[in-house]
Amino acid sequence: MHHAGDILLTLFIVFVAAQIGSEIAQRLKLPGVVGEIAAGCVVGPSVLGWIVPEQIATGTPLDVLAEVGVVLLLFSVGLETRLEDLKKVGKVAFLVGVLGVLVPFGMGSLWAHGSGFDWSRSLFVAAAFVATSAGITARVLQELGALQRVESKVILGAAVIDDILAMLLLGVVVSLQGGEGFDLLHLLTVLVGAIGFIAVIGIGGARVMRWNSAWLDKPRNPQSALAIVLALCLGLAYVSTRFGLAAIIGAFLAGMIASETRQQHTLEKQTQPLLALLTPFFFVVTGSKIDLHLLANVETEIMLLVVTLIAIASKLIGGFLGALSLGRRSATIVGFGMVPRGEVGVVIASLGLTAGVFTDRIYAIIVAMSLLTAMVTPPVLAWLLRRGDAAKKRVEIPETKG
Amino acid sequence: MHHAGDILLTLFIVFVAAQIGSEIAQRLKLPGVVGEIAAGCVVGPSVLGWIVPEQIATGTPLDVLAEVGVVLLLFSVGLETRLEDLKKVGKVAFLVGVLGVLVPFGMGSLWAHGSGFDWSRSLFVAAAFVATSAGITARVLQELGALQRVESKVILGAAVIDDILAMLLLGVVVSLQGGEGFDLLHLLTVLVGAIGFIAVIGIGGARVMRWNSAWLDKPRNPQSALAIVLALCLGLAYVSTRFGLAAIIGAFLAGMIASETRQQHTLEKQTQPLLALLTPFFFVVTGSKIDLHLLANVETEIMLLVVTLIAIASKLIGGFLGALSLGRRSATIVGFGMVPRGEVGVVIASLGLTAGVFTDRIYAIIVAMSLLTAMVTPPVLAWLLRRGDAAKKRVEIPETKG
Repeated sequence: MHHAGDILLTLFIVFVAAQIGSEIAQRLKLPGVVGEIAAGCVVGPSVLGWIVPEQIATGTPLDVLAEVGVVLLLFSVGLETRLEDLKKVGKVAFLVGVLGVLVPFGMGSLWAHGSGFDWSRSLFVAAAFVATSAGITARVLQELGALQRVESKVILGAAVIDDILAMLLLGVVVSLQGGEGFDLLHLLTVLVGAIGFIAVIGIGGARVMRWNSAWLDKPRNPQSALAIVLALCLGLAYVSTRFGLAAIIGAFLAGMIASETRQQHTLEKQTQPLLALLTPFFFVVTGSKIDLHLLANVETEIMLLVVTLIAIASKLIGGFLGALSLGRRSATIVGFGMVPRGEVGVVIASLGLTAGVFTDRIYAIIVAMSLLTAMVTPPVLAWLLRRGDAAKKRVEIPETKG
Repeated sequence: MHHAGDILLTLFIVFVAAQIGSEIAQRLKLPGVVGEIAAGCVVGPSVLGWIVPEQIATGTPLDVLAEVGVVLLLFSVGLETRLEDLKKVGKVAFLVGVLGVLVPFGMGSLWAHGSGFDWSRSLFVAAAFVATSAGITARVLQELGALQRVESKVILGAAVIDDILAMLLLGVVVSLQGGEGFDLLHLLTVLVGAIGFIAVIGIGGARVMRWNSAWLDKPRNPQSALAIVLALCLGLAYVSTRFGLAAIIGAFLAGMIASETRQQHTLEKQTQPLLALLTPFFFVVTGSKIDLHLLANVETEIMLLVVTLIAIASKLIGGFLGALSLGRRSATIVGFGMVPRGEVGVVIASLGLTAGVFTDRIYAIIVAMSLLTAMVTPPVLAWLLRRGDAAKKRVEIPETKG
């Protein structure tokens, strides 16, 4: 297959860049994911140009590999998350999810209106402040072996709530642009659909697997259990998009269901090599979307700084207030865990650009803000988690070889 | 990432189709790979049309996933192959490689000339009879746990020789079409380049790894050894295409080098989940290229039958004669192991079509022949291997759960 050479070179570049970036970051006591995103920025159009914008556009092989990478990542996070644990933190997670949407939406609209957008457009801009991208935080929590902490459960539960609310909000602001107002009945249908999907799949699926998971080993394929849960993961990721939710929500649910099986431990081990191969594509592609040329202009830099500070502060405040019942230290961790907007902010900004609501400049700034929050969060979160550990009990952080 | 829904559905369909096909095939006592190819045919354009031709064209995400799948497959086969073992069968493998190219090329040209092509075009058509696709056979040998048999070593070694010769032959016949004759010096350069690449990487790489592989575990990443050899795999697969060879030859070399490390056993285990996720894409995509509509015409069916019989017989004879020193039974296994043309035949037929050498009809027939040989080989090969086992010693075939 001689034609395949060029894409193989691209895959090689992305994969090696991720390894080098991750290694450097870890030697600097930063989470590896920071290095992978930075490596993407370096090999991307901004610096070396080894990856060109056409290669990371929607639907390209690299984009699909990145998507599969983040889907598998959230699947593996789900695999370490029990439904029972999420239920225990249900109330706090709900509060964090709701406040973590309302505060950024409010502060975002005020800022946008203050910058000269009319109210209807301001709400669209504000929608890009809202949606948390669970991928970045999930990766940091996993890297630090912190997925079993109560803060992690709250963040994951809140990420699900956040995604539902963000989807509804986006539906409202998009319909407002046409000037026809919004259809409350339609909105309620969407809400009920999304909640129903999550509840039926999450609770029903977990019950089925807890009751009996021996059938996963029935097929002849020696890796049948893995194959079946991976099929479930791809299937639920797709169905989740049909309900207007992010693909990673479905993948997380699939992992959570699989965590109830008696094969859970084996599945966890088998998922590790899949993550090693595929998640680098997600983080490098995310990083390659950072456009450093934007920062050549001082006025834009200042605006970006303001927007990023609002984005960070608003999420942090929302999450902190929501999780205050856990104590200030945990509430801070939860708040920072919700900060990354990552690729979700980029997607909303693209929608705004195609809808003619965003100017090129505000688009570039929202994209840069989304990626900046993704870059800033991991080191802060890692520092907060480690400090918490050092203060309370010297828990082993599995940074060394497993 | 709401845009990603459609591709996720496609991935889900392909993956689930592969599981169902493989399960049915194994219950019918056939190798799983037959079921995966057949499943591809069923979900492809010929029957259900859930996968359309645009989705499996060169450079599409599905095509790239298929390519990564077969690259990983040959990597994992390399991981079970020691250079020393290949050296032991070197002479036989060389004979099998050479005769396995000459006999099909001779018989193919005679048939093409007999069907009305002039000599220069006949040689191009014959080139499509030549190249063996190692993927299909490798998968069958792996599925039956037969990779350590002497016949398997001969087949793998011969596949490397076969790929070099097929590449040279293709270079010659393509240059003949222009009527300018061929540049012998250029051809020798290509030959020396390809052999040099394989020798330097294979022998040098194996020596380095045998001497010291502790450095693979030096990086902070807990899965650093896997990450490094996967990078090697992608890199050598690419470089291999630059030398005019198939990507899978480089991947096989990378695996063979990695088999000399002290981490070999761990790497083998970690590669299994990667194969479980990605190789189905290769076989389902291969199957989805089968165009059943072609077979609606009796005259074409007969021609296809003749071409396929020539393709099978000529490879079988070449391989059998080359391996005769191993005894008749082993020589038959080796001969059949070389029969599948698979995607390599499809690529050469496409070249012929774009070069204006092939008619639409001969293109369709060569493609169908390539895929038919891929379908026919696995059951015959499995039967031969099992019969051999039953006759000699009752070796455990790891068909049951590992």
